[in-house]
Amino acid sequence: MASTSSLSLSNSLLARSVSHHAPASASPLPTFSGLKSASSSSPAQIPIAALRRRFLQRQIRAAAIETLAPAETSLVDNSVNTIRFLAVDAVENANSGHPGLPMGCAPMGHVLYDEFIKFNPKNPYWFNRDRFVLSAGHGCMLQYALLHLAGYDSCKLEDLKSFRQWGSKTPGHPENFETPGVEVTTGPLGQGIANAVGLALAEKHLAARFNKPDCEIVDHYTYCILGDGCQMEGVAHEACSLAGHWGLGKLIALYDDNHISIDGDTEIAFTEDVSKRFEALGWHVIWVKNGNNGYDEIRAAIKEAKSVKDKPTMIKITTTIGYGSPNKSNSYAVHGSALGAKEVDATRKFLGWPHEPFHVPDDVKKHWSRHIPEGASLESEWNEKFAAYEQKYKEEADVLKSIITGELPAGWEKALPTYAPDSPGDATRVLSQQNINNLADVLPAFVGGSADLASSNLSLMKKFGNFQKNTPEERNIRFGVREHGMGAICNGIARHCPGMIPYCATFFVFTDYMRAAIRISALSQSRVIYVMTHDSIGLGEDGPTHQPIEHLASFRAMPNVLMLRPADGNETSGAYRVAILNKKRPSVLALSRQKVPLIAGTSIEGVEKGGYIVSDNSSDNKPDVILMGTGTELELAVEAAHELRKEGKAVRVVSLVSWELFGEQSAEYKESVLPEDVTARVSIEAASTFGWERMVGSKGKAIGIDSFGASAPAPVLYKELGITAQAVIAAAKELC
Amino acid sequence: MASTSSLSLSNSLLARSVSHHAPASASPLPTFSGLKSASSSSPAQIPIAALRRRFLQRQIRAAAIETLAPAETSLVDNSVNTIRFLAVDAVENANSGHPGLPMGCAPMGHVLYDEFIKFNPKNPYWFNRDRFVLSAGHGCMLQYALLHLAGYDSCKLEDLKSFRQWGSKTPGHPENFETPGVEVTTGPLGQGIANAVGLALAEKHLAARFNKPDCEIVDHYTYCILGDGCQMEGVAHEACSLAGHWGLGKLIALYDDNHISIDGDTEIAFTEDVSKRFEALGWHVIWVKNGNNGYDEIRAAIKEAKSVKDKPTMIKITTTIGYGSPNKSNSYAVHGSALGAKEVDATRKFLGWPHEPFHVPDDVKKHWSRHIPEGASLESEWNEKFAAYEQKYKEEADVLKSIITGELPAGWEKALPTYAPDSPGDATRVLSQQNINNLADVLPAFVGGSADLASSNLSLMKKFGNFQKNTPEERNIRFGVREHGMGAICNGIARHCPGMIPYCATFFVFTDYMRAAIRISALSQSRVIYVMTHDSIGLGEDGPTHQPIEHLASFRAMPNVLMLRPADGNETSGAYRVAILNKKRPSVLALSRQKVPLIAGTSIEGVEKGGYIVSDNSSDNKPDVILMGTGTELELAVEAAHELRKEGKAVRVVSLVSWELFGEQSAEYKESVLPEDVTARVSIEAASTFGWERMVGSKGKAIGIDSFGASAPAPVLYKELGITAQAVIAAAKELC
Repeated sequence: MASTSSLSLSNSLLARSVSHHAPASASPLPTFSGLKSASSSSPAQIPIAALRRRFLQRQIRAAAIETLAPAETSLVDNSVNTIRFLAVDAVENANSGHPGLPMGCAPMGHVLYDEFIKFNPKNPYWFNRDRFVLSAGHGCMLQYALLHLAGYDSCKLEDLKSFRQWGSKTPGHPENFETPGVEVTTGPLGQGIANAVGLALAEKHLAARFNKPDCEIVDHYTYCILGDGCQMEGVAHEACSLAGHWGLGKLIALYDDNHISIDGDTEIAFTEDVSKRFEALGWHVIWVKNGNNGYDEIRAAIKEAKSVKDKPTMIKITTTIGYGSPNKSNSYAVHGSALGAKEVDATRKFLGWPHEPFHVPDDVKKHWSRHIPEGASLESEWNEKFAAYEQKYKEEADVLKSIITGELPAGWEKALPTYAPDSPGDATRVLSQQNINNLADVLPAFVGGSADLASSNLSLMKKFGNFQKNTPEERNIRFGVREHGMGAICNGIARHCPGMIPYCATFFVFTDYMRAAIRISALSQSRVIYVMTHDSIGLGEDGPTHQPIEHLASFRAMPNVLMLRPADGNETSGAYRVAILNKKRPSVLALSRQKVPLIAGTSIEGVEKGGYIVSDNSSDNKPDVILMGTGTELELAVEAAHELRKEGKAVRVVSLVSWELFGEQSAEYKESVLPEDVTARVSIEAASTFGWERMVGSKGKAIGIDSFGASAPAPVLYKELGITAQAVIAAAKELC
Repeated sequence: MASTSSLSLSNSLLARSVSHHAPASASPLPTFSGLKSASSSSPAQIPIAALRRRFLQRQIRAAAIETLAPAETSLVDNSVNTIRFLAVDAVENANSGHPGLPMGCAPMGHVLYDEFIKFNPKNPYWFNRDRFVLSAGHGCMLQYALLHLAGYDSCKLEDLKSFRQWGSKTPGHPENFETPGVEVTTGPLGQGIANAVGLALAEKHLAARFNKPDCEIVDHYTYCILGDGCQMEGVAHEACSLAGHWGLGKLIALYDDNHISIDGDTEIAFTEDVSKRFEALGWHVIWVKNGNNGYDEIRAAIKEAKSVKDKPTMIKITTTIGYGSPNKSNSYAVHGSALGAKEVDATRKFLGWPHEPFHVPDDVKKHWSRHIPEGASLESEWNEKFAAYEQKYKEEADVLKSIITGELPAGWEKALPTYAPDSPGDATRVLSQQNINNLADVLPAFVGGSADLASSNLSLMKKFGNFQKNTPEERNIRFGVREHGMGAICNGIARHCPGMIPYCATFFVFTDYMRAAIRISALSQSRVIYVMTHDSIGLGEDGPTHQPIEHLASFRAMPNVLMLRPADGNETSGAYRVAILNKKRPSVLALSRQKVPLIAGTSIEGVEKGGYIVSDNSSDNKPDVILMGTGTELELAVEAAHELRKEGKAVRVVSLVSWELFGEQSAEYKESVLPEDVTARVSIEAASTFGWERMVGSKGKAIGIDSFGASAPAPVLYKELGITAQAVIAAAKELC
């Protein structure tokens, strides 16, 4: 991993000012710039089905128009229709999927991938590639068709033919873990654009830290296609407000303005002035009125967007959903179902496409084939650039390399604080703060922040300033009160490259606002660290709106998430260790507002096993009773054990800090902690008892809270709601 | 409940054109209108701590200024300072809470409650009252202080003195179920304004249906105070976009523009042009620059807002957080902590407030005391109006009365479809659609819709049109792709009056987007029906982003929610019956995309018990094995039982359609369904097994899916993921 010749760091360079689409004179391959438009003679051109009044509402300045030669236009038409029909045919073949978006967005898709996006199809993970996110993920056949034409091995023709089938690389929505070339996992609307904001943030941050006046080693754009559905989602709004605030100039969003969502015309629920809103958010806004075949306008708009450096750009591109389908275009009927054989035929006739299904014409194949050598050369040029950078800036290059590869610095774990048995206790949020600050010293791309609760979550890295428009090299991210946007942005950061390690913080109860993003972290195998403080009724007076009850259970039930609830300093350090080492899953850390003592017997190693014995006075693995707890209630189990032992009982205390990790241990280990024969078991946790039967068994007792909390000082709540050592003792005595 | 003399329908009337603040000549009580301003001589007036550049950014048209007489101004100052110090003193007394907002918002709070809001303090549930929502719920001492001055019994001085204490009526955030006078439960930011949108929607809808040219029987405003934090939340944006779309002219939002959130100046994360955004959303926008003591401007702005009938209005009111605290105002330090004795003293000096804690000056008391008789007369006048309405429009009055009281029409349950054992099966979403349409016939204020998935959720009431700006009498609500906003708006609708029964629909997996709203439904005891279709891998090709796995478990763990997963037609009807009858909790219905057969033995009555025996060939309550299932997998349990019985086994099949309801049954009943001695138990559910140990016990087997799903046709997924009758048979054979 340390070699510069690794896949991610193979040798290639692209100077910022040079487009990889050189003028025709410099390249034997077809190009499209600077030629005269003949789009009006295009066979594919039909009038937009209906000019809606919205078109007239507001004049965003139209993109300057470039021109294109007739021959070239016909090639583009062919390419665009190839994309349309690959989508139509794949959906038809699967009898399932969404043809409408690919048919409408094929033109912008073609222009983007063929003319703008920097990529190497044979190495989808080349670090300095442009990132592309299809936020309207249901239109994934657009992306698969583009990846196919572009030469990615993940989207060969047989992959398109197995669209939406078991084991295929072409699932029903884009999934980064299934399809190399797909950057993030989308489908749940609105999150993709927020992921794109995260990708653009990562680029801006790394560029600010590593670029030199003589060498812009980090330099790529982030493109995103989003639809009306994404625009309606609050998460998209949150992230776009931040993108404007941060001035993410290299983020370019193409808004597929087709006026149709599943329920029909967007008139029924979505009549806001989107362009004006984005202006209010600090974006540069362009309107391309003819997205169906206005290649020149699309091209000009993207060029203009690239030239605006201080603001993100939204290009509103008016299209017709299902363009080309004579009877279903411009209606929801084309959104999410196969066209049906008859309408496919009609569409073939309409667009002049006599070919059999999955046909890619030779001229289109030939045209796109240049991307394989061009991509390879882009990467190798960048690698040469990196070699030069490394020679001149050895230290920075080493750090950047570790970020690119994700290799953790040797000995990083030594930064995790450890606590001697006589250390004073503290709130686990305070102990978390120590971890965050120590990790900030050793992990070069550990970045993060909170949703406007930095002083409560204690999530600031004290030695760094704020990532802002003009200080993008800093590492504290201020998300504002935007939990969902925060989570989705962190997913984008995590997916930028393996060494970016984002964390984000809010109150544990507000995971409800960002749960959809946490699920995407889990599904997309993204290491995001969720620092969730105020993790129980222990927060006290803020009351039930702020007191998590069901949240631990709800994450224990979610696949591929590590739910960690450390009890003290050593367990908090263990939780961070586990969170960092688990590169393919997110971790949710539930941390206390209130102080806890350091508990004898806790350890980092224990946390790695998820559940372990904290103290025990039994022999032969046969305690009279096993007391279990997590987090702030482990103390109560310890206290109860102390009392019970005084009365002669053999009592084992078990910390169950992470059920997932414990579940992954060997049967022998689990038996050594929770022997099957010992059915006298009591658990205590200031949360829902739901799920605790797994640990206490049919004969055990789970002490918890199965109602909402209340507003009162924490000690009162613990007493009134029965979360006490006395309750544990009483329950234990009933059992043994 | 049928009498018009019920509390909610006592006799009182307020003509729309008459303010309850009559001119001075018509009233012996002090009034403020039409008098000359002397705010510049107010002892409380200090310069705003810092004029920020944002003040200059954009000139929204300033409110016209009315004038106020010096004497009156000093009384208002006294009242405003009373509010400030009740908040300061209560927070100080609790040593916990948020003084900053009440101190800054006391002027707008005073003007709103004293001069505009129509209420009867002795009947907080009077139907035609104006609704007020404090979306920035942390500032609840503002609301408690206002309710105290206004004469509500829920906020007597001793209640303010027990702020944030166990058992008090004044919890740390506003809770409708604790404090009469509080309409909704707020605290989690952004949702309150969405609740207000729901309240305003309900008013507009009922007014459109029941008002007559000669009698506007439904006629109130909805006011909301929201802060910077609310403005950043996506849910607020979603709801405000809809409010603009719907033209909710009687919704008036007062935006406490204080530039401070917990992390400090909003400059660090929130620099969008909020006013321009709201204009883009179709709102009328007004800016009051001096919210600290510009009573006239505030008053004029609200008057203007009331006069704009076709758009909701946002009044941006620039204030200083913690106004009056010389050392902490205009900083996050005053947001969420007690000021401390020293700073309280300094604030008393600064604002010229020599009084002991919790003091209400006599002139202020006297001034506010008029609201008790005025409120009573408002209500009795409205009730007279209602009596006249009833005389003239008997039929409408009866319906409206049932909506106001929440009394269900006699025999409504007969509308629920029932199915004979030989009925053809169907997808439970289709069966749900039948229920929705049948209920639409019998429940007069059953309203709802989906988040742009009407054709998938099958959630349309076919006989009604769409609730829209110009057709507010219709009952289908088109929420667009805004799940969180949808849930929070439904909470507002449900809280408008007991007979409004909102339902809302999306894919079950997208409960993740709206979970925070569902939790508020549960906490605030609001009957919202969540119609959640596509409830498992059974949705097939859309893949893991769309396939719920952990969602059933996550709601089973949430307090006060009914999680229902019906298996067929009778169970779907049972689920709706339960959902309607449970007036104090929300129901989440998980419904299938795919067809299921009608299962012999299912029943509406069974659903009401949550778990029940569907079939059994055992005797003496001693089956060899108990097979359990829910929803679409109950069929697999039935099939497995059939096979096992062929082999001579005594097999019981149990449907566990709602764990909550089953858990509420008597111990005897539970034992009759799941006898403790029968430990051979197998469950099957196409979802996380988390929590199933509660039902299958330590020796049983839970068949489920503890990973994410995949993109493939549903039958393939069921087979590949092991959700089959064969798996049940194999597990059962291992156990018995």
